[in-house]
Amino acid sequence: MITLASDFGSPYPAAMKGVVLQRSDARLVDVAHDLPRQDVRAAAFWCRETLPYFPPAVHLVVVDPGVGTDRDALVVRVGEHALVAPDNGVVVPAARRLAERAAADSDDDAPIECFCYDYQDPASATFHGRDVFAPAAAAVHEVGVTNLGTLEPIDRIESMAPGASPETVVDCRFPDPAVDSTEARGEVLVVDDFGNAITNVPGSFLDGRVGEAVAVNGTSATAVAAFDDVDVGDRLVTVGSHGYVECDVNRGRGDAAFELDPGDDVVLSL
Amino acid sequence: MITLASDFGSPYPAAMKGVVLQRSDARLVDVAHDLPRQDVRAAAFWCRETLPYFPPAVHLVVVDPGVGTDRDALVVRVGEHALVAPDNGVVVPAARRLAERAAADSDDDAPIECFCYDYQDPASATFHGRDVFAPAAAAVHEVGVTNLGTLEPIDRIESMAPGASPETVVDCRFPDPAVDSTEARGEVLVVDDFGNAITNVPGSFLDGRVGEAVAVNGTSATAVAAFDDVDVGDRLVTVGSHGYVECDVNRGRGDAAFELDPGDDVVLSL
Amino acid sequence: MITLASDFGSPYPAAMKGVVLQRSDARLVDVAHDLPRQDVRAAAFWCRETLPYFPPAVHLVVVDPGVGTDRDALVVRVGEHALVAPDNGVVVPAARRLAERAAADSDDDAPIECFCYDYQDPASATFHGRDVFAPAAAAVHEVGVTNLGTLEPIDRIESMAPGASPETVVDCRFPDPAVDSTEARGEVLVVDDFGNAITNVPGSFLDGRVGEAVAVNGTSATAVAAFDDVDVGDRLVTVGSHGYVECDVNRGRGDAAFELDPGDDVVLSL
Repeated sequence: MITLASDFGSPYPAAMKGVVLQRSDARLVDVAHDLPRQDVRAAAFWCRETLPYFPPAVHLVVVDPGVGTDRDALVVRVGEHALVAPDNGVVVPAARRLAERAAADSDDDAPIECFCYDYQDPASATFHGRDVFAPAAAAVHEVGVTNLGTLEPIDRIESMAPGASPETVVDCRFPDPAVDSTEARGEVLVVDDFGNAITNVPGSFLDGRVGEAVAVNGTSATAVAAFDDVDVGDRLVTVGSHGYVECDVNRGRGDAAFELDPGDDVVLSL
Repeated sequence: MITLASDFGSPYPAAMKGVVLQRSDARLVDVAHDLPRQDVRAAAFWCRETLPYFPPAVHLVVVDPGVGTDRDALVVRVGEHALVAPDNGVVVPAARRLAERAAADSDDDAPIECFCYDYQDPASATFHGRDVFAPAAAAVHEVGVTNLGTLEPIDRIESMAPGASPETVVDCRFPDPAVDSTEARGEVLVVDDFGNAITNVPGSFLDGRVGEAVAVNGTSATAVAAFDDVDVGDRLVTVGSHGYVECDVNRGRGDAAFELDPGDDVVLSL
Repeated sequence: MITLASDFGSPYPAAMKGVVLQRSDARLVDVAHDLPRQDVRAAAFWCRETLPYFPPAVHLVVVDPGVGTDRDALVVRVGEHALVAPDNGVVVPAARRLAERAAADSDDDAPIECFCYDYQDPASATFHGRDVFAPAAAAVHEVGVTNLGTLEPIDRIESMAPGASPETVVDCRFPDPAVDSTEARGEVLVVDDFGNAITNVPGSFLDGRVGEAVAVNGTSATAVAAFDDVDVGDRLVTVGSHGYVECDVNRGRGDAAFELDPGDDVVLSL
């Protein structure tokens, strides 16, 4: 199985799929091709929140504002999962999450192993998703994730060796909030398609607070378990599906109601 | 085969797919993930107009404004099709259409059978698509649609019994128009991506009227068989692919030209 | 394998997929369903730039402003590829590109063969994608691309004979630019989802010019190899993944910065 995620919109992902299918009959599953454009941190968030739900797979992730520069090309292996991506941090949070889940599921550690590969520059420097990463993902799938070290040079990929390490690849970290018993100071990580403003404040901040008033940057809302626990159009905060506090509106857009954009500071006061 | 339909936008459907693929190697087919958001009636329309074209399948449909409340979770079986959805009516018109088609195709009746299942509340009350309905769809697929009564408890799903009936589940009906030989009074059911305003007036209203003038809420248009039978940019009414009269513009948007939105009253006058 | 491309948006492609899957268990791969609406030339561009990357397949392409009129329905065969589409030119550039690639890959010519088929008019004249082309694509897949001449009548498709020729089908050509050593006069063919304005000026115009200033309709830009070779927000021209000169902005929209829309004249001056 090969999953595909990018910020390419349409129809560029089709060229990537064609290139993969020339080399592999793997099942292809689209994750998203409208990841926030050229926004590595937001894309990394969504990869972390989607890819670990899949069974073992090769995950092709291309959000690559540095395309055509000398940034490296990576394969990150965690157990039977392989993440194929540019070395800009976009898959590192997903790798960390996969490793945490593997550790929780067994006594074995699932190390994060990073492989770099050289590639010949393709004719165009603008579409490495098609010309570099798609052939790499197909090659990784065909050789098998557990056999990555034996990958023969294929297409433009000249070597696949554990030359990189989790310490030397580009990392991506989300900020930590400051939380006490009555106030949490954090940040909006992303706004989803519903307009829910997803913060980095852990859901535990709302433990035992259902039904109480919570101020979001001074704007009042109600802490609830389910959207429909307030009237249609009313503001709420709740523990979202990512485990964080979200600032939402029932059947409306929380980002508009709270005037929150990704990256904004947010103060939650009980 | 499992089809997937939701109002989730992107990338939440990917988490649902991952959850399904952890439990089943069924073929997955996306129907749409941009169904009108939290609009059960419009989503029910589109499910009715797409799902019955598929061969027997498990159809996972999640448009669920009541997520996290005590609304029930359903599996509706019609012949070899199973519809997995919240109990809010979203799949009832599709079930009725499937039953009509089955009856037309054979002498056997295809009853609509409704199964409720209990589930343990997941940690988050906001994403039952991922945490409740996706595991349910996979479980239904794996046990087989014809064996639903023997489904063992799986994941959070504690029972699957025909405890519900077509009479007790939440229904969804579309309004009936009032049609005589020269006038039809109806409603705009949905506006599609082309901007075609699809009414609930049956196409038979235009029988023998091709080429004639038709007023739509007083705005003139021409009844045609094909869009291109009028000039580019001109208003027309025609029998659309759903069997209803549509108010369209050739290579333009009918909703704008006729000032029609979903739910608006519409009077067609010959 | 059957690929699907259309300008249908959502959820109409689902009905096409259902119809195909009733008749075939082919792998389905979505190319795009947001091709520029009713814009045959732009859709032809994107088909040419995506379909040839696929392994041999049946390619279902429905951008069909003449739906329901007497325009013909075609299957165009190039080697082991078959393109199923209305006879409006939308797949001709892709067919030509497939033939060029086949010729480059072998000593054998891969002729472009065109088959017309008759079909009974479906009840609705507005959705031949579902009612004519989807059954045709499934039928072509099931009989096999190399056996097209033996296709039995199926569904509404009454015959499949090489009655058409590349000379008699509707063609689609892109304009040629006028290029000398210091100036290229061309046209914007399409604007992609990133806002890159893709011209018809061949990339060779920029050979040896990396780092130099290039005026685009009098607006200054820098010729670069990679987007990130200029600062974020700066204008650039580069050789895009289609082999043409593109007018772009690093992490921004070139169409806005250069005031370029599809079809606009563009003069590049060194």
